Amino acid sequence: MIEEIVDRAASAARELASWTGPRRRDVLHACAAALAERADELVPIVAGETGLAQARLRGELDRTTGQLRLLGDTALAEQIRRSVGVAPGGVDVLTVTVPIGPVAVFAASNFPLAFGVAGGDTGSALAAGCPVVVKAHPAQPATGRAIAAILSDALAGAGAPAGTFGLVEGGADVSLALVAASPIRAVGFTGSLAGGRALLDAASRRPDPIPVYAEMGSLNPVIVLPGALTDPRWPAALADAVTGSAGQLCTKPGLVLVPDSAEGSALGEALANAVAERSTHRMLTPAMSAAHASWLDRAAGLPDAVVTAGPATGDAPRPFAVRVPAASLRGELLEEHFGPAVVVASAPVEAYPGIVATLAGSLTATVLADVSDESDVDTARVLLPALAERAGRIVWNGVPTGVAVCEAMHHGGPWPATSAPWSTSVGTAAVERFRRPVALQGLPAGLFP
Amino acid sequence: MIEEIVDRAASAARELASWTGPRRRDVLHACAAALAERADELVPIVAGETGLAQARLRGELDRTTGQLRLLGDTALAEQIRRSVGVAPGGVDVLTVTVPIGPVAVFAASNFPLAFGVAGGDTGSALAAGCPVVVKAHPAQPATGRAIAAILSDALAGAGAPAGTFGLVEGGADVSLALVAASPIRAVGFTGSLAGGRALLDAASRRPDPIPVYAEMGSLNPVIVLPGALTDPRWPAALADAVTGSAGQLCTKPGLVLVPDSAEGSALGEALANAVAERSTHRMLTPAMSAAHASWLDRAAGLPDAVVTAGPATGDAPRPFAVRVPAASLRGELLEEHFGPAVVVASAPVEAYPGIVATLAGSLTATVLADVSDESDVDTARVLLPALAERAGRIVWNGVPTGVAVCEAMHHGGPWPATSAPWSTSVGTAAVERFRRPVALQGLPAGLFP
Repeated sequence: MIEEIVDRAASAARELASWTGPRRRDVLHACAAALAERADELVPIVAGETGLAQARLRGELDRTTGQLRLLGDTALAEQIRRSVGVAPGGVDVLTVTVPIGPVAVFAASNFPLAFGVAGGDTGSALAAGCPVVVKAHPAQPATGRAIAAILSDALAGAGAPAGTFGLVEGGADVSLALVAASPIRAVGFTGSLAGGRALLDAASRRPDPIPVYAEMGSLNPVIVLPGALTDPRWPAALADAVTGSAGQLCTKPGLVLVPDSAEGSALGEALANAVAERSTHRMLTPAMSAAHASWLDRAAGLPDAVVTAGPATGDAPRPFAVRVPAASLRGELLEEHFGPAVVVASAPVEAYPGIVATLAGSLTATVLADVSDESDVDTARVLLPALAERAGRIVWNGVPTGVAVCEAMHHGGPWPATSAPWSTSVGTAAVERFRRPVALQGLPAGLFP
Repeated sequence: MIEEIVDRAASAARELASWTGPRRRDVLHACAAALAERADELVPIVAGETGLAQARLRGELDRTTGQLRLLGDTALAEQIRRSVGVAPGGVDVLTVTVPIGPVAVFAASNFPLAFGVAGGDTGSALAAGCPVVVKAHPAQPATGRAIAAILSDALAGAGAPAGTFGLVEGGADVSLALVAASPIRAVGFTGSLAGGRALLDAASRRPDPIPVYAEMGSLNPVIVLPGALTDPRWPAALADAVTGSAGQLCTKPGLVLVPDSAEGSALGEALANAVAERSTHRMLTPAMSAAHASWLDRAAGLPDAVVTAGPATGDAPRPFAVRVPAASLRGELLEEHFGPAVVVASAPVEAYPGIVATLAGSLTATVLADVSDESDVDTARVLLPALAERAGRIVWNGVPTGVAVCEAMHHGGPWPATSAPWSTSVGTAAVERFRRPVALQGLPAGLFP
């Protein structure tokens, strides 16, 4: 089954590679239009399977179709990457890019549309001119099939060769078989650290290892400097970021570092209370709900920890905050936990650099500060280079949730945030993951497609 | 020992990251000047240890210093990779690049200068702002130490922090320990497939896998179309490319495909005779000499193979060509062999696409043709996309040896040519291997170094 689908993708690869930019753009715009047209049918299916609110899903569908159109427009852009050089004998060298070949994409559960079957990885691969074989998320079979049907129709209608898109379903064995399939040339994944690591290991075991672009776990630290403590908007804004979509965003703030002053404690308490008061909704899977509840139990048992938790309401998870002195930060207090929960750690500002030095790679790092406060600015100047070593995006006086899909965006970061910190899975540069350069030395114009 | 050197590199990383472009350029130009100044002392050491001709080594030293200057100039170029975008709330997003951190470089034996201790990988990493720990090639300890001494002095003189450059020596255990060392963030390697694979596997076993940029084995096929058979320059030009530097170049043509016509056979025979007549010189190591001699023995025993070999002269390897029908191409006839040897395979031109489809990844693929011959052009149009799937550089009517160090150059290719087909180890884009993007969202101007 997998073999057949992957072989069809391999057959489509050559024809897709020969397509011009305008043709690729048209195909991606056709996919976007088809998804938008079927919104009323699609959104309830996704909502039913994920527990996510329909309003959020309608926004996510807009993002998804906008993303497909933007990636399509990127396919239009010049594929000649670098200017001409001169090789021995005085002949010209021109570097172009070519598609890497069939790409395996693993649909994410937490963005069933924007990182699902027709999400950013699929759009990036198609924009690069690569056929795509997507594994649907096992918790969302109806969502996966509905999107796949819309996408298949749109691709066929736009004249894409059979095999341009294929869907597979199954468990871990299917995932590993897909990554091991000989024609597959690259992998796109958004999910857990364990899942991404398993795919990376499978790709490394191939006779011909292939790149795995995995976006995995991220703590997304928020560093609060003293000047920000008087800004009344932060407790609510941070609580919204922690609990929105039931805390199931890759960029959810997982750790907030506050000064160990009276004002710092007040902010920590206000944040904890705000988190506990937020209403949430059912998590994506029962396993995620159970993991969240178990984390609450373990957190409540930690020495030095003060846990503030909201009530249990139906099948929604209990939102909670864990307040600890930063000196107690270790183990899973420094790890990503899916769900509406946050760790608030307090420390003297002088200790911040030492704490930052212990943080692993993250997608984002946020600094809340008063730019007119000289002391805040001095501290920020010390912290920013250390945060840049550990994160793919630095947010100043904002929240890390809400990733703009634009040319300048970088959504990535050092391990364990991703397996490929030089790459991004959001924005137009995401296409670069699925093409590679070829230098043409002395080739007469017009001979290369 | 390794731990200490790597820790010093980690200490240097932060300061280097804060350096401005002009300062990095100055450091690289200082290294280039120091190497050029010590040429008369350095070249005889390298010649004695490698068996390579002094004239070639002087040329290689020029290339090496030119490369360091070019990479230095690249460091000057704007590091703001993408233009500004807009994130939620209307704030600006600006993507910059930051150095990836300490880089481990493995000096190659076949380019003791250009890919040695102060070669392209070292220069690329320094240009990116990364400290470098180089493992000297075990067969060239005096070369490694001499270059390391010059480089260390030049770096210290230019004000680089201690730990910017470190040298380690040893065998496979040292290589694996270096790749496993926690502060190392990326690996640059040029060498054998087995060596590159071992480093890649070691990097994948880390708790935090890191990228390995390995340039490994390459067959570098040359496809001769009928129109090129009347061009009298090819037998000599190809024989020079096969035997130059005793056949120890990464881009040496390893397979020449000729039409199975009388003219094709004549070209094959002329090439075989020219190869056998070339004088060579001692190979880089006794092990390489032995492997070459052993390949000659095995080739002579192959059914269907006609071997034309030159005489044994002192410690120089015997140059040879193996002529076979393309139908017999399999196993090690399709693998890279270091040394002055080439496989010449003959087939009907109609069979060329099927033969190309069996080739693994290569650094280069060459087409010899007559652009005014319609039949050649038709065949080329079919072959070029298939060759682009398999090679990082396509050469038209030339030889693949002689890699221009320029902005447009791409020196890479699909596995087994490299472990990272999206990257190049030659040219200015080589710097990109050692930096990664960071998006700055809403950050006030001037706060980030």
